[in-house]
Amino acid sequence: MPRKIVIVGANAAGAEAAVAARKTDREAEIILVNKEDTRTYSRCGLPFVLGGQIPSFENLIVYPPSFYRMMKFDLRLGTTAVDLNTEAKTVELVDKEGKTETIEYDSLILATGSHPFKPPIDGIDKEGVFSLHTIKDGEAILKAMKKAKSAVIIGSGLIGLETAIAFLDQGIKATVIEMLPSILPRLLDRDMAREVQLRLERKGLRIIVGKAAEAIVGNERATGVLVGGEEIEADIVVVAAGVRPNTELAQKAGIEIGETRGIKTNIRMETSAKDVYAAGDCAETTHIITRRPALPLLGTAAVREGKVAGVNAAGGYAVFPGSLFSTVSQLSDFEIGATGITEFWASRFGLDVIVGKISGHTRATYYPGAKTIKVKLLVERETKRIVGGQIVGGEDVTQRINALSLAIQMNMTVYELAKADTCYAPSVCETWEPIVLAAEMAIKRL
Amino acid sequence: MPRKIVIVGANAAGAEAAVAARKTDREAEIILVNKEDTRTYSRCGLPFVLGGQIPSFENLIVYPPSFYRMMKFDLRLGTTAVDLNTEAKTVELVDKEGKTETIEYDSLILATGSHPFKPPIDGIDKEGVFSLHTIKDGEAILKAMKKAKSAVIIGSGLIGLETAIAFLDQGIKATVIEMLPSILPRLLDRDMAREVQLRLERKGLRIIVGKAAEAIVGNERATGVLVGGEEIEADIVVVAAGVRPNTELAQKAGIEIGETRGIKTNIRMETSAKDVYAAGDCAETTHIITRRPALPLLGTAAVREGKVAGVNAAGGYAVFPGSLFSTVSQLSDFEIGATGITEFWASRFGLDVIVGKISGHTRATYYPGAKTIKVKLLVERETKRIVGGQIVGGEDVTQRINALSLAIQMNMTVYELAKADTCYAPSVCETWEPIVLAAEMAIKRL
Repeated sequence: MPRKIVIVGANAAGAEAAVAARKTDREAEIILVNKEDTRTYSRCGLPFVLGGQIPSFENLIVYPPSFYRMMKFDLRLGTTAVDLNTEAKTVELVDKEGKTETIEYDSLILATGSHPFKPPIDGIDKEGVFSLHTIKDGEAILKAMKKAKSAVIIGSGLIGLETAIAFLDQGIKATVIEMLPSILPRLLDRDMAREVQLRLERKGLRIIVGKAAEAIVGNERATGVLVGGEEIEADIVVVAAGVRPNTELAQKAGIEIGETRGIKTNIRMETSAKDVYAAGDCAETTHIITRRPALPLLGTAAVREGKVAGVNAAGGYAVFPGSLFSTVSQLSDFEIGATGITEFWASRFGLDVIVGKISGHTRATYYPGAKTIKVKLLVERETKRIVGGQIVGGEDVTQRINALSLAIQMNMTVYELAKADTCYAPSVCETWEPIVLAAEMAIKRL
Repeated sequence: MPRKIVIVGANAAGAEAAVAARKTDREAEIILVNKEDTRTYSRCGLPFVLGGQIPSFENLIVYPPSFYRMMKFDLRLGTTAVDLNTEAKTVELVDKEGKTETIEYDSLILATGSHPFKPPIDGIDKEGVFSLHTIKDGEAILKAMKKAKSAVIIGSGLIGLETAIAFLDQGIKATVIEMLPSILPRLLDRDMAREVQLRLERKGLRIIVGKAAEAIVGNERATGVLVGGEEIEADIVVVAAGVRPNTELAQKAGIEIGETRGIKTNIRMETSAKDVYAAGDCAETTHIITRRPALPLLGTAAVREGKVAGVNAAGGYAVFPGSLFSTVSQLSDFEIGATGITEFWASRFGLDVIVGKISGHTRATYYPGAKTIKVKLLVERETKRIVGGQIVGGEDVTQRINALSLAIQMNMTVYELAKADTCYAPSVCETWEPIVLAAEMAIKRL
């Protein structure tokens, strides 16, 4: 009898798990269940369809139907897993016609993802209030954009800012409201966030920090958002106040949930239930620096976890070492990125850090088109290890974040980074690489 | 009495040494001697003035005269060090008027650079034959370009190719001749070099490999180059057959020269003579992977060595850990880079390596503007450590080379690289970073 693997969720984590499982066990029966009635797609691309950079939501769909056939995946779209019995090793599915089926599994992977958090704001259920989490959400917003002149985005995480930029790109006036004192609080410290805010304001985005949206006004349809006593006009309101892991199925089945509200997993992505794995937004993992339970909520972590879960579910062996939360985004004509921890998170988790910060250029200053770049480096005081990096710059942020991520992964000290053998050519960087100079700045403060 | 530091050479290594010496000893007397009658400039920028990307050679000059005054450098331009007595600790200088002066030193730094190698080709001394090593060379080529229709470049190193691209950019037909079987032999293996060659040929560059230039033809003035029986028309011939370290002064003074023909140094950049340091193109250092004497001939190594020499010459303590030869260049609309060793060098130095190679994209495939990128990774068979990387791609090569350079420096294994926590956003990279995928490809072959 071939091994029977059921995967609940078919986006980043689920699809990657399925592929890894197939590579590990050519004979396994793999059932891929997706609540959404869409094949695997790239959620991260949604704001760029709104902005017009990507022509259609169709483009975000990763594989053609033939791929699932070729991989011998039993793909079930529009199907929800409603009940899980980890003793009997069965899962109950309801398809789009409402038909129920209970299937047995040898291994099960929970890749149930997350859902947008709905803050308790008066009027949040009005028409014209959206979140951007699925293609369906995207289609609804895109339709509303056709006759919209103004938008308010509640929340200044990456989804919030990327959506706000998309509105600007389409000629819609946009305002972002952030309850906390600075934007991108998960990613950047206040000094770096301030840099990003100034750049975004220069693009025409209005940003309100340190104030919560008090109410969404309008009759049936939202017409504005009340914040700090001011009513801001809005034909569209997007709530981008973060996401929460989808854990109902796991919870009902008695699977342990962690302090981050994600499903607890070990380094093989095994949950507390035998032969049940979790991966992606719904799964709690460990932060490599704080060594505490953590919820990356990132596509990159999702595919990595999915792959590990898939290998293990198919009888192989793989481990996920935890996450550094490495993140990057392009906002209009500049990029921001971060890896490891911020000063804020360092103090929350009891790490004493030293900061090295530098402003540099992305090319030789005499080479046309050189753009500014700001690097902030965090060094753990006792061990002198690099534990975090934040970068805001006109170009080439992504691979610098990757370089810092490798440095952190390898326990590189700031002294070692200061000696790094970086490369140089006038049109693509400076003689002294900014991340190396940031290391030198940190050394001066040790 | 303040410490007296004499630095022979005032470009990348010399100027960096002077700055580091000043930071280490605020009181020192620092004499900066430059054979060229030009202030410190960026040699790497020369081809881009020819290509028109940089408006003038003036732009390459790094510091204004006020900088030297502010740093209290006694800058002597057009001045040659003709004799060095390491017993008496004196150096004899001849200025541009021919005036001789013997000065004493407490520390001396040899940053004498290199000179273009002149291969024994018939007709190489004809008019219209150039090399591109100094601003003066650049000015002469730029003048000749005004009435030139065609050019031949002898040698396919970075200077050769960058110069060839500059000719194309200015509407001059260009042919590159490479004696060895593939272009960029110091940097790339044949498979990757082939990739670069195809891209360059598509830009209209003619490339002849595996054949030596036999003669430069023409009466007084070069009119062509004879290669493999064919005469290729050339109003301009550029000889870019590599450079040789300038070591006459050191040799005459009895300072030890290494097997690479560079001045032998230890990790503090000390030569065999007491209180004499060497840095930059003239200095032999160690290759971090082969652990053998090596001559990086790179601006990045020059500034790093200069800094270390400057600190030590001023009574401080600093070490240079050797070089990984990390290199990058932009050629027309793509970039190439390398770090560590190639397969060719691995076999020369007795390292058994495994290769992981992958073609990927620089953005999500659905994101407009995605460019192809090819990554080749070298893994040492016994230790599984990353020992080399070569990348050819449409964009974002530089920081990937830096990431691999950090990985090599930290003795990262290919297994660790396969687990790297890289970041992702559709407009700036793919979910699975190509260098991580290259690691997985290598693992399959272990």
